[in-house]
Amino acid sequence: MMEETRLQKQLRFLVEVDQMKNVLRQTLLVDKSRRENDAEHSWHFALMAMLLSEYADGSKVDFYRVLRMALVHDLIEVYAGDTFAYDKKGNEDKEEREKKAADKLFGMLPEDQGKEIRDLWEEFDQMETPDAQYAASIDRLQPLINNYMTQGHTWHIGTVTSKDVYARAAIIEKAAPELWKVVQFIIKDSIEKGWLKE
Amino acid sequence: MMEETRLQKQLRFLVEVDQMKNVLRQTLLVDKSRRENDAEHSWHFALMAMLLSEYADGSKVDFYRVLRMALVHDLIEVYAGDTFAYDKKGNEDKEEREKKAADKLFGMLPEDQGKEIRDLWEEFDQMETPDAQYAASIDRLQPLINNYMTQGHTWHIGTVTSKDVYARAAIIEKAAPELWKVVQFIIKDSIEKGWLKE
Repeated sequence: MMEETRLQKQLRFLVEVDQMKNVLRQTLLVDKSRRENDAEHSWHFALMAMLLSEYADGSKVDFYRVLRMALVHDLIEVYAGDTFAYDKKGNEDKEEREKKAADKLFGMLPEDQGKEIRDLWEEFDQMETPDAQYAASIDRLQPLINNYMTQGHTWHIGTVTSKDVYARAAIIEKAAPELWKVVQFIIKDSIEKGWLKE
Repeated sequence: MMEETRLQKQLRFLVEVDQMKNVLRQTLLVDKSRRENDAEHSWHFALMAMLLSEYADGSKVDFYRVLRMALVHDLIEVYAGDTFAYDKKGNEDKEEREKKAADKLFGMLPEDQGKEIRDLWEEFDQMETPDAQYAASIDRLQPLINNYMTQGHTWHIGTVTSKDVYARAAIIEKAAPELWKVVQFIIKDSIEKGWLKE
């Protein structure tokens, strides 16, 4: 069999990740008609990162890199599946499952490009650089807003409390303080409305 | 009533465009389970533009702008709906419908930002700048690939011929010649397989 060309590898990868459109998250669409999938979430996250960039520290954050992180941050879920943020058991073996998925998925790409995308994903996941911290903030803000618009749907799945939600969103306080006020408002208002346990 | 703050306007807009997840296109997912929506298409387009950037002229194309175009290029469809590329009647009043939708939608944003996004969308739509030409190429390549993977599904809806498909994809020959070869292969192979009329 002939060795695949660089372009063939890229196209095969781009067809493979079509499966992102079938990886369901716990979050609902704003109209509550159904659960959101990873492709939709990645688009919404990227658009939100673009439109809210003024609330991050523009002297430290490279927003072009943030957009690229948003586009690739969930790709490995085509093999590893989505792990609900508040699912403690599911999060125990998450790292191992995702590492295996990354080997398989990014291995489909030309080596230099596979490494580039994997590095972006790992940087995002580690939340240490300013780019990753702003990206992670928006990755958390997007479902928080959808959740608020759907009367706290995902908070009723487990036994999620306001403390869990604050902890999950904590990076926002550091990376985008103005958006942290939005988080505080949503949590307080949701407690008041009976959608979230204190 | 108090005037909305800048951030409130942005958040209201970002909630409104959640409707992109319900704007259905004619294209199917690769697994043929259902039709693709605008949010999924926008994500796939942006990712594809990112991973295939080496096939565009990097001395002329600003790929950061291309990604932003991808993220916003279909937003007005939350009001105007998706118009099937090969629907001649639907395309007659497309411009007017989309202009109205743009006034309404981008008017929700702070003025400077609404203008910025609208300018990006109009630039994309006019296909005159190198950024818009590469973006338009990928906007056409993504459904072409999904269509090929689903045995030419959308070509059977109307009476689409290979001439129509070549015309629709023509910008790719100019903006990314290497990707034009992919178009030629897909069209020729689809004719041979009986999925597309010559």
